Amino acid sequence: MATYLEQLETPAPVVDMDRLALNLDRMAAYATLHGLRLRPHVKTHKSPRIAAEQLRLGAVGLTCATLREAEVMAGVCDDLLVAYPPVGAARLERLARLPGDVRVTVAADDAAALDALSVAARLGQRTIDVLVELDLGMHRVGVTSPEKAIAVARQIERAPALRYAGVQFYPGHVRAPVGEQDAALRQVGRDLGAYLDALRSEGLAPAVVSGGSTPAAWRMHEVPGVTEVRPGTYVYNDRTTAQIGACDWEDCALTVLATVVSVAVKGQAVVDAGTKALGREPLRAEGEGYGALLDHPEVVVARMSEEHGILDLSKTSWRPRLGDQVRIVPNHVCIVVHLFDEIIGVRGHAVETAWSVAARGRGANLELDTAPSRPRAV
Amino acid sequence: MATYLEQLETPAPVVDMDRLALNLDRMAAYATLHGLRLRPHVKTHKSPRIAAEQLRLGAVGLTCATLREAEVMAGVCDDLLVAYPPVGAARLERLARLPGDVRVTVAADDAAALDALSVAARLGQRTIDVLVELDLGMHRVGVTSPEKAIAVARQIERAPALRYAGVQFYPGHVRAPVGEQDAALRQVGRDLGAYLDALRSEGLAPAVVSGGSTPAAWRMHEVPGVTEVRPGTYVYNDRTTAQIGACDWEDCALTVLATVVSVAVKGQAVVDAGTKALGREPLRAEGEGYGALLDHPEVVVARMSEEHGILDLSKTSWRPRLGDQVRIVPNHVCIVVHLFDEIIGVRGHAVETAWSVAARGRGANLELDTAPSRPRAV
Repeated sequence: MATYLEQLETPAPVVDMDRLALNLDRMAAYATLHGLRLRPHVKTHKSPRIAAEQLRLGAVGLTCATLREAEVMAGVCDDLLVAYPPVGAARLERLARLPGDVRVTVAADDAAALDALSVAARLGQRTIDVLVELDLGMHRVGVTSPEKAIAVARQIERAPALRYAGVQFYPGHVRAPVGEQDAALRQVGRDLGAYLDALRSEGLAPAVVSGGSTPAAWRMHEVPGVTEVRPGTYVYNDRTTAQIGACDWEDCALTVLATVVSVAVKGQAVVDAGTKALGREPLRAEGEGYGALLDHPEVVVARMSEEHGILDLSKTSWRPRLGDQVRIVPNHVCIVVHLFDEIIGVRGHAVETAWSVAARGRGANLELDTAPSRPRAV
Repeated sequence: MATYLEQLETPAPVVDMDRLALNLDRMAAYATLHGLRLRPHVKTHKSPRIAAEQLRLGAVGLTCATLREAEVMAGVCDDLLVAYPPVGAARLERLARLPGDVRVTVAADDAAALDALSVAARLGQRTIDVLVELDLGMHRVGVTSPEKAIAVARQIERAPALRYAGVQFYPGHVRAPVGEQDAALRQVGRDLGAYLDALRSEGLAPAVVSGGSTPAAWRMHEVPGVTEVRPGTYVYNDRTTAQIGACDWEDCALTVLATVVSVAVKGQAVVDAGTKALGREPLRAEGEGYGALLDHPEVVVARMSEEHGILDLSKTSWRPRLGDQVRIVPNHVCIVVHLFDEIIGVRGHAVETAWSVAARGRGANLELDTAPSRPRAV
């Protein structure tokens, strides 16, 4: 393996190991300080190696979105929350087939999903814990009234092989700068309170109240009743997280290493990181580019093709030369990780390690056809 | 493997094999009719199986963007154009190490890149053909004047182990509806003519004049001097291609199969295809969603999270139920293919085959560290 950054092939996702360690420590300390159970979402890193470090630092379990993530993380953790609607025969089958000694929890917002889930749990000879998913303003999934929450909870209690474990919500709409989240957090607190009161009055007091997300993570202790948080992005952070103040620019641990491959067109430089390396995630609003240089944050990736990123040089006197390397802080790091198979760990300019994004992809077990090979000149 | 669409795990990229065959035939026939050499770009499918079919139908070779693509395609083709600036030590090393019996061509826009390329070719004991990359209005890469084109061509001729093979350009800016491309194509023709005249007058008449791209593909025969086209998207097509009239809706061969996982929030349905399955590519302008349903084109994916797509039901009376499957035509199919490891081929509702997106990823050869495994209950 290459010894220094400069020898690496580009584009490549590169993680500063010191920054990563600080990010992991900081969230673990926050959770401990406020008595919140930390159940990190693995969607950001998809790597058992990072998950093992999160568990070593005190995480009570892991959160997954896909069954591929759950299958891979079962290798390092015996308490998994699959925070995704348990709908679809293939998904249920994989859920039921997770190792028998792993405690599996899912989140549901529809009583109609519970019959099939119960059948799957029984066929898998296991009990599945179920959280009722609440919509507290994100308007994506989740029951939309306390009455519906009670109905789903009762249905869970009635269903064989299912266990009512509590509630979860995802406050992904709380994306204001951290210091300006007061009103949104108070609203989440009021709405959650109404759900909790209603459930308690029906004898359905939730053992788990799971919230979280990195943008709102540092203030989740202010929402009464929350017992658990599920942040994901904090391990690597990104330009969006820095913009809303949930981390500093210096906390962005993952950058996309890229090479300047053309300076032919005036006023710009072209690097070999495009949409297939950075994704096309806007920085909240359009027009602020798809990433910025770690060492020159005023230089943004203004336009992209699949394998080309166009650096706008209008706001800098810095002039890159053909072949120069740059490090790009992406707008949304979870998308970048999902685009690569391996991550490279560095300290300063020294390459220290590399690990697999093992839970990437879907892991469907298909029989594949191959192409005929060309005749070779022997 | 599942026998019918309904048994497949979602999200999954599904290709209608009849439509794929028609798309392949149509472009091959167009090229033959107009005497253009067809060198399809593999970035769209990244699969040797599709490449082999393109070659069987008369393609003269293949176009690649990444070295991973070139390495994989060398298994089915002995004439590869790496249409990407040959810059960076690792890229040059992989280029030089392609199988010795493969004719390798690259495109360059900077004389400064040629010394290292020449060294790599000599160390790889091979000759590398080089096209001069011209900027004909895309403003991404490419020399920006005939004088610069002549300078780069002369430098190629002088460099040991390199051979001047002609010119290439990428008319990616010609994206008007096919019937309204006249002015843009005439401008491309005039600009190209000036380059060709200048090169000929210096004894540098290009043997290859390579243009192409799916949006402008059907009219490339109207640009005087073009000898070769490099369309990629036409194999699968997508919503953008249909919108500009470079294909019909019925020619969209690849859809993302998804399952309705929540109908809890009014006026919408949530499917399990989000940015990690569809990408976040706008349909030219923002606001028209990130994909549309094959069977209900008025229903678009209006919002997305990483694993959630929100179907806007405001323009339809169709009401999906929890667990229903839908097929989404993505805005940009090349991005979708890059997100998956396998493609599933169907005829009607019957699953017929599956193949690997073998040239996906970067294929860097890293030594990987692993995570400690959890203690197992035996």
